[in-house]
Parts: sequence; C-alpha cells; structure tokens
Amino acid sequence: MSVLALAGGVGGAKLANGLAAILPPETLTVAVNTGDDFEHMGLPISPDIDSVTYALAGMNNVELGWGVAGESWAFMDAMARLHGETWFRLGDRDLATHILRRQLLRQGNLSAATDDIRRRLGIAQKIVPMSDDPVRSIVSTDQGDLAFQDYFVRYQCTPRFLSIRFEGAEQARPSVGLLAAFDDPGLEAIIFCPSNPLLSIAPILAIPGVRERIASRRLPCVALSPFIARQAVKGPAAKIMAELGIAATAAAVAAHYGDLIDGLVIDSADENPIADEGATLFATDILMRDSADQQRLAREVLDFARRLT
Amino acid sequence: MSVLALAGGVGGAKLANGLAAILPPETLTVAVNTGDDFEHMGLPISPDIDSVTYALAGMNNVELGWGVAGESWAFMDAMARLHGETWFRLGDRDLATHILRRQLLRQGNLSAATDDIRRRLGIAQKIVPMSDDPVRSIVSTDQGDLAFQDYFVRYQCTPRFLSIRFEGAEQARPSVGLLAAFDDPGLEAIIFCPSNPLLSIAPILAIPGVRERIASRRLPCVALSPFIARQAVKGPAAKIMAELGIAATAAAVAAHYGDLIDGLVIDSADENPIADEGATLFATDILMRDSADQQRLAREVLDFARRLT
Repeated sequence: MSVLALAGGVGGAKLANGLAAILPPETLTVAVNTGDDFEHMGLPISPDIDSVTYALAGMNNVELGWGVAGESWAFMDAMARLHGETWFRLGDRDLATHILRRQLLRQGNLSAATDDIRRRLGIAQKIVPMSDDPVRSIVSTDQGDLAFQDYFVRYQCTPRFLSIRFEGAEQARPSVGLLAAFDDPGLEAIIFCPSNPLLSIAPILAIPGVRERIASRRLPCVALSPFIARQAVKGPAAKIMAELGIAATAAAVAAHYGDLIDGLVIDSADENPIADEGATLFATDILMRDSADQQRLAREVLDFARRLT
Repeated sequence: MSVLALAGGVGGAKLANGLAAILPPETLTVAVNTGDDFEHMGLPISPDIDSVTYALAGMNNVELGWGVAGESWAFMDAMARLHGETWFRLGDRDLATHILRRQLLRQGNLSAATDDIRRRLGIAQKIVPMSDDPVRSIVSTDQGDLAFQDYFVRYQCTPRFLSIRFEGAEQARPSVGLLAAFDDPGLEAIIFCPSNPLLSIAPILAIPGVRERIASRRLPCVALSPFIARQAVKGPAAKIMAELGIAATAAAVAAHYGDLIDGLVIDSADENPIADEGATLFATDILMRDSADQQRLAREVLDFARRLT
C-alpha cells in the first residue's frame, strides 16, 4: 500500500516528514509544487522541492523555517560587497544544492535532478516535481503582475493580492513520477498537505490530468487545513485570503477543494465547516511544533483516510 | 606616463598591489594570464584575474596566499554532503565573484566582466585579461595531458612535468585593454611580475602580437625573477624547472626571457646571472612579506626601469 502526498513548502514538508517517519520508505511519494521555481543569479531555484528535500534529509533549518540547518551567509555578504542582488537570500549551504542542480539539469530534467539530489542525501522516499514542464505562478496585484518570488520575497507580500495564475500549466504534463504514483495499484490514499491551497496546491491541480485523476480515484483523498484560528501557521495565506474577501477558515478550505476531497482535517480549535460541504471532518491538533507532532498528525491523517475507505 | 604589468597569480598580484600603491591609479594596467581559467561546477573560474583583483581590493587572503580574506567553507561542506566535487576549493565569499562573473558573461566578454567587478570593488586601476579568446594551459605529464587546474590542484603537481602548451593561443587576439596599454603614447615601462615564467607569463607572450609588440618597444621592459635561493617563493615553479632539468635560478629566468627584456630584478642572495645574457641586472630583497615590501620593491623596479630608458 502506498501514499501520495501533494505538498508545497514548509507546511507540506513538515507533514511529509511525519509521513516519511511512519511509512515504509518505498511507499511514500511526495509530489511538490514547482510554480514558485525561478532562476536567480543564473541558478535554478526550486524552493518547495528543497523544503521537502531538506526536511526529509533532516537538514532543514527549524529556526528560520526555511533553508538548511546551521546556515551561514558569507556568500551574501560578499555579493553585497560586489553590489550584486541580495533581495533573495541564498545561504552558503543552500547554494550547493542550486549549483549541483544546475549541473544535473544539463544532463536531465528536474525529476532526474531532484531524484539524484534526494539519493545523495540518503532520502529513501520518492520526491517528484509536479511537472518537468515550466509552470510559473504569477500574482496579479494592485502594483501589476509579479513573478511569485518577487511578490513573496522581494516585496514581502505587501502589494494587494488580486489573483494568481499558473503560466505554462495548461501545456504542462504531470511528471512521470506523479503519474506513476497515481497509477500505482497499491495506492491507498492521496493527502493534500497543509500547504497554501491557492499558492501551493492549486498549481499542482492546474496541470491537465491531475484534477481528473484525483476526481476519478477509488481511494480516499484527504486535505489538511493550513489555518488555525483564522491564521496561517506560516506564510501569507491569511493575508491573501483577506484581500480576496475570504475568511482564513477551514470552511474556506472545504469550499475551495469542494468535492475533490473526501475528508478534511482541521484544528480542534476551529469551527466545524462541514455542515454545508460534502467532506467528512476530522478535528485534531494540527500545529506541528516538532517531529513528534509531525508523526502524530501523519498517523492521525492516515488513520482518518483509512476510515474513509 | 603609464605602466603595463604582466601578471600571473599570487606573486604578480603582490607586485601589482605595490605598483598600485605608488602610481597614480589611472596610469597602471595589469594584464593577467587567463591560461589557468576553467569552468568548474558550471562556473567560470579565472584564478589569476581574481588573485590580482582581490589584492588590489585589499581583500586577498594573506594566510592562505589565495582567495578572499576571512573566507569560510560552508558551501564546500554542503557540497561534500551532496557527494559533489570538492577537489577544487571554492570559498563561500569567492563564490560570489564566480556567480556574478557568470551573470556578467551572459552580457559581455571577460574584459567587460573583469572591468565591472573591479569597479564594483572600488579598484581604480585597470585589470585586463590577456585575451578574451579562450586559451587553456595544458600540461603534458608522465600521466598524460592534464588541464592546468587538474595538474595544479587536483593532482597537486605530483605528475612529472614534461611540457606545457597553450591551446587556443595561436587563434587568440590580445584583449582590447592590453592593446590599449601597448599603444598608450604615455607608456613608460613594461614589467613582467614575479610570476611563474613558464606557467603564467608564457601564455601571455604566446598570444600573437604580444611578443612582437614588446620586442618593437621603445621603452624599458623589466622582468622580476620569481626565485630566491633556487626556490620559488610560492607555487610549483622550482619543481617544474627541476623536472625540465633547469635550475630554478635567476640565470634560467634571464635565459628564458632572452633579449625580450632590458632589465632583470633578482634577489640579493642570488648569483649574478647576467654575465652571459643581454639584460642589465638589479639585485634587491625581492621577497614581498607585506604591503610595505610590495611598495618598496615596486618603487625600486620603477626606478630601475627609468634608469634603463
């Protein structure tokens, strides 16, 4: 029996890490959003793939919430002295991943590079990009269209969020690894990690064939709300929802995913949003403070999914 | 009045730094060997240009004798964890130069990138590559032909040195900046820095037009011996000379440059090699321990050159 988790950045990486800890390694595939990917200083940056990879390698930076543990910033200091670009912080250790990925991308696609890097780091679980075709999340704001990292990092999410589109998604194909996970006869459950529904999960669902494969499944699909008490645990989801006139609640998540999911996992502190939605509810403590929380939540989510079978 | 210095790596950078300290900034051009340049991890590495640039910016690493002061190695640690290549040590700070250069080389040639970087670091003197065309030093050894950095760094100069050739030199043109320095009507002297004659100065002289321009000059050309007491101050010159059956002496340097130079600067401790050569001799303390030594030697070399006019 195997599990497919769809993940964005930090929240996705945490649950993926919990799932990795409790499942036989060969049974877990984490399919990751690449809509945030971009080229910076000539290097191919895949923020969400790296968040998942670093978490599963046990080398993620818990203090920062992103990047590599024990990170240092001498490269950025030197780049500042050279009057180079410094708005996107590339740590000394993180740089090794990007430089290696650039080398690997000369010989193969992003799937191959991602797989090579996770093997080099001793990760036994499969990490696959949602697609090997370029998909770029573009945020329409009151200050014009912005590439995702410009909106997210350079402008710190301050422009007013109007809408998001995923350029290239219509022409993109799901990665071979994602298709293999869908087609695995042993697939037991599909989990939408507690990543931003609009920014991180939506790009994955925007790739032709993904939503259809999920809709036609014969196994449970469970989503986790990324909100607790009308706040995102991390990131700009709540601000964006507010600018769209939507409350950052489990109800909004349930409405967003609609009948694509069978079950919704929300925080115990939140109101039950399920009355007027189709999904079954499971309420628990969804805040993942540490790896014990990650494993407990992963176990609860899998048990919940199995009950939905 | 202006001065043209031909330089390789560390020894060249030291004298260039001394010349920079005593000359009006706009009057010094340092033309640098690029035969050691190579691509590593997808980055364009120009070791000698960087040695000169870091020295003139006052940011060279005095302890190591190469690279950037206060260097750290987190990137290399991370690359080792990724099982990437680690034989060529790229410091965290040094990396910024290579990544910026790669970006600049998308828009212009090595001359433009080198000029941009030296301006960003506040260097007023001109630093020019010997050529913008690729020239690659290839060392023939008892273990086969080796690219220079393979011989020098990867194999630590242990293979027996048989000969060196400069691939591409015949098709290369001197850089615009080097030609401008030769053609400057105010040019007062040409200095061969105390860099390795076979490895660092020879590639510059191998570019068609360079030797001819020096030979047809109407101004003094002075070379500094890189040897003291039959040893190179730094680097593999003495070992290589020995493998070629040539003593690492000022006499060998005089014989190597022949009538291309008017004057030779040697260490006071060394024997006078000039008896059977054409160049005039100046003996002094040529070891540059610090910037005071660099400036004293630069001043002595310029005074010597002026006496030869």
